[in-house]
Amino acid sequence: MTYRAPVADILYSLKHVAGFAAAIDEGRFGELDLDTAEAVIAEAGKFATEAIAPLDVVGDREGARCANGVVTMPPGFRDAYRRWAEAGWAGVTAKPEYGGMGLPHAVAAACNEMWSGASMGFALCPLLGEGAIGALEVYGSETLRATYLGRLVTGEWTGTMNLTEPQAGSDLGAVKTRAERAVDGTYRLTGQKIFITYGEHDLADNIVHLVLARLPDAPPGTRGISLFLAPKFLVKPDGSLGPRNDVRCASIEHKLGIHASPTCVMVYGDAGGATAYLVGEENRGLAAMFVMMNAARLGVGLQGVAIGEKAYQKALTYARERRQGRAGAAGGGMSPIVEHPDVKRMLATMKALVQAARGICHLTAMAIDLAIHAESAEARALASERAALLTPVAKAFSTDIGDEVASLGLQVHGGMGFIEETGAAQYFRDSRIAAIYEGTNGVQAIDLVQRKLPLSGGATLKREIAAMRAVVAAVAASGEAEFGATAARLGEAVDALEQASAYLGGALGGDLASALAGATSYLRLFGLALGGICLAKAGLAALSQPAERGRIGLARFFAEKLATAAPGLARSIQSGAAPLASCDAVLAESA
Amino acid sequence: MTYRAPVADILYSLKHVAGFAAAIDEGRFGELDLDTAEAVIAEAGKFATEAIAPLDVVGDREGARCANGVVTMPPGFRDAYRRWAEAGWAGVTAKPEYGGMGLPHAVAAACNEMWSGASMGFALCPLLGEGAIGALEVYGSETLRATYLGRLVTGEWTGTMNLTEPQAGSDLGAVKTRAERAVDGTYRLTGQKIFITYGEHDLADNIVHLVLARLPDAPPGTRGISLFLAPKFLVKPDGSLGPRNDVRCASIEHKLGIHASPTCVMVYGDAGGATAYLVGEENRGLAAMFVMMNAARLGVGLQGVAIGEKAYQKALTYARERRQGRAGAAGGGMSPIVEHPDVKRMLATMKALVQAARGICHLTAMAIDLAIHAESAEARALASERAALLTPVAKAFSTDIGDEVASLGLQVHGGMGFIEETGAAQYFRDSRIAAIYEGTNGVQAIDLVQRKLPLSGGATLKREIAAMRAVVAAVAASGEAEFGATAARLGEAVDALEQASAYLGGALGGDLASALAGATSYLRLFGLALGGICLAKAGLAALSQPAERGRIGLARFFAEKLATAAPGLARSIQSGAAPLASCDAVLAESA
Repeated sequence: MTYRAPVADILYSLKHVAGFAAAIDEGRFGELDLDTAEAVIAEAGKFATEAIAPLDVVGDREGARCANGVVTMPPGFRDAYRRWAEAGWAGVTAKPEYGGMGLPHAVAAACNEMWSGASMGFALCPLLGEGAIGALEVYGSETLRATYLGRLVTGEWTGTMNLTEPQAGSDLGAVKTRAERAVDGTYRLTGQKIFITYGEHDLADNIVHLVLARLPDAPPGTRGISLFLAPKFLVKPDGSLGPRNDVRCASIEHKLGIHASPTCVMVYGDAGGATAYLVGEENRGLAAMFVMMNAARLGVGLQGVAIGEKAYQKALTYARERRQGRAGAAGGGMSPIVEHPDVKRMLATMKALVQAARGICHLTAMAIDLAIHAESAEARALASERAALLTPVAKAFSTDIGDEVASLGLQVHGGMGFIEETGAAQYFRDSRIAAIYEGTNGVQAIDLVQRKLPLSGGATLKREIAAMRAVVAAVAASGEAEFGATAARLGEAVDALEQASAYLGGALGGDLASALAGATSYLRLFGLALGGICLAKAGLAALSQPAERGRIGLARFFAEKLATAAPGLARSIQSGAAPLASCDAVLAESA
Repeated sequence: MTYRAPVADILYSLKHVAGFAAAIDEGRFGELDLDTAEAVIAEAGKFATEAIAPLDVVGDREGARCANGVVTMPPGFRDAYRRWAEAGWAGVTAKPEYGGMGLPHAVAAACNEMWSGASMGFALCPLLGEGAIGALEVYGSETLRATYLGRLVTGEWTGTMNLTEPQAGSDLGAVKTRAERAVDGTYRLTGQKIFITYGEHDLADNIVHLVLARLPDAPPGTRGISLFLAPKFLVKPDGSLGPRNDVRCASIEHKLGIHASPTCVMVYGDAGGATAYLVGEENRGLAAMFVMMNAARLGVGLQGVAIGEKAYQKALTYARERRQGRAGAAGGGMSPIVEHPDVKRMLATMKALVQAARGICHLTAMAIDLAIHAESAEARALASERAALLTPVAKAFSTDIGDEVASLGLQVHGGMGFIEETGAAQYFRDSRIAAIYEGTNGVQAIDLVQRKLPLSGGATLKREIAAMRAVVAAVAASGEAEFGATAARLGEAVDALEQASAYLGGALGGDLASALAGATSYLRLFGLALGGICLAKAGLAALSQPAERGRIGLARFFAEKLATAAPGLARSIQSGAAPLASCDAVLAESA
């Protein structure tokens, strides 16, 4: 089978977990009504299922090819991209004045999940384009916006993010690409960038590179980095394409997965310097880049959800067809393996983790929307902080569970899962990058502990925990037997989160090593608690919807089987840095 | 870097965790002295590092090739295999009367880990050969032993296990391959086998297939399965090779990993039936096959250890060389990433998990040895039950952590980890099969709960838990400050294991669904508790060895950072089947 966009689950999550319907009712999105939003999402689902998903296998097998700086995409990609752009999908969140749909990020989250689910290799191109649009909307000069934004919004041109260099990965302060001021107010870039997603390809007429570089007189470190726009083809004053710029793709990488997505080594300035334009202010490039990165982080989190979803779909289909042994009472022939408790355990785990991560991503998207659209300045500020708090969780928890779910999906297939033709292995391979790019999941965890936990003196986190407790109380108050011990287990998970937060908050005050030693476990704990809450909200909403009551059971499964890991994570975190320091001797031995 | 066989760590684990030195001192292995055993292991390590490890990359890139039923191994494999066989490594555990070294399984465990660490694709061939030798030693007729065993022990010929068929994977009762009795007392096999590791290759002159098949008058299910030996080339009375048998390789699989290992579709009886010889008794084939499978399960567990070890070696080397950001106090240039707490956390986790799994595998190997060599019949019976109890844990826990450690190793490399040329991705791909073959890890968990937990009315498990408690008490009694909270955390882990065991024991009495729903979590819990105990034993032994004191810190890390998951697993297990049943509605929806 191929992927079917899970439109109903996505809509349910947006409405009942993330509060999208309520926000529309309150007029947060102007004229937008729920029917329209649902229709857009349904249409995107149709396109993802019908036009993109069929490319997923050929994208993996053929991959993008590079010869003499020319990158050729796998068969079918050009046509699908053209149709995708013509349908307007490149401009979902872009402002109407630039030709965009002006829809909320919540709708974009729905679409992005489905593009990624259909083909992660395909979807990376739009994801980068969306980031470029966002950065130019905020930081681009009027000229840059006039020249580039419209063409990005139509998808005629695509965008890239050029951050990484061989010596500058997680540490962007080490960027060396040089930018020299030219007499005409433009700049000349020289340097090499690596891991540039869709840095070169044949889907569009032009490629708009957003590039981090350093001016000759820039201060060292991250405070001396500027953001530039360097197009593949220079653009004439009339908007038509001029000569090729001095930037080229030297090679593409041979990767574990996402073979369709060309990961390029980009060389700037071989012939004297690539013409580039400043985006925002000199030496303030990182702030502008973070606009792109935050959106991209949510997008990558949604990739985890997307891969998990498709892995679940494939595994469930297989588990219903494949018969082995007899489950339960004797008699009859072999049972579909879905009936065996351990296989059912894997499938339920997959479904529950995917829905939990989807909920977290949707909460994050809604927070981003409300940071723009909430009624009062105070509400916008609160929403902005919530988005900041949740973004690392959405990125890292979702991509971690994407890997786990893809691995479970492979396992459900048994030996067939290890055979490439089955397809489960592709998901397992594709998924694995998501915990690395756009800030490794370790970097996300550090961000969560070191920068997000202290937001507003800890008040942002306290509000999040209070919101979780309200859901726990509502589950308890529902008196619904099918919830089982959901309230008790989730309550313990929230307790664990609160205790660990208090410990880390204290450690940040003078024992940074202990705070950082627990960062990854803390992010996991946060994801488990919040994910369980998301499922519980979905279950609560299902109390009045007979057709949706299965969601109550899924919430229970998550709470009683998965969220039970929370107190142990808190205990691990609370042991601080000492057990890690005690490994110094071992880590100093020869490998 | 390439893999370096971890001889010192292996010897330490055998001696101080598994009690190998004590068993030698007590004369359990006859004339064998520790120096000899150590010399053998060191020599194997040298061969693994120098002769096999260099094949690992080419094995992955070139892979085994199949054309017209002929399988060609990657460059270098023939020569390395020849040298490996000439050095006698095919006969480590084989009895001296058949030309073997007659060494304990503990020594074989050391060797097998190192072969697998050097090249998992290469090592699979010996692993299957060892299984065939073991089965023929026990169940082979005098004629079969005279004809085949010696050539398997010298490695001139290799062995295979032919179990799986398209409809018969975990459920061997569904095997359909037909065996017809011939007038001369031999049999004729007809049928298709899949996933046959090294079913065809060019490393050796002959291949000895051990094949599960069904006689025409066999009862249905697993009680109607017989084991046969069918050589690739028939063997003449003088021992020379006769005509080709009616068995051929139809194709090999295109797999996620272990590309060097040919995974064959084997067709028997295209031309009337493959000549085969009964091994053991008619319809008792499964018992004979389990002799091979149990040895193979430990061998596969050691693959998990091996892949974890090499992933750790590579990641540690990279983390010492790669510099990004500044760790700890400001000043100076960029720090090696090993100094960043979250990277250190990953490396310490990798090392601790590998050592824990190695300890469990070594305990299992020693139990297998003592089941043969212990002084009294009673001691042998106890050791045999211990081996039965620990085998599923050794197989599944070790291969699960092999996957986790390989994934962490990839993560330590950041973006480079996703690039195939780096090599970390190969380990991640290779590792993934180990949780599937030789009985999926789900099957291991069910075996542990349903068949091993009730051994001797639960007394086998009780003894294991008592042995764990003794270690916890010794750690507490040591008064060693560097152990930190090791005793407390491990004590809680053992408590959790005991509680979960009691719950599952009760559930087995009438609520099988609840017992099976918790099987995988229980196996994990068992592995965490026992793994922590193994590290604690290593730490206790280090109290008197200043150069080894780092092991105390590693035990502490495992106890305070990883074993803390144990109580949550127990809680999850104790929720039984109800939360799983509550997902039935969701799993019944369209995928």
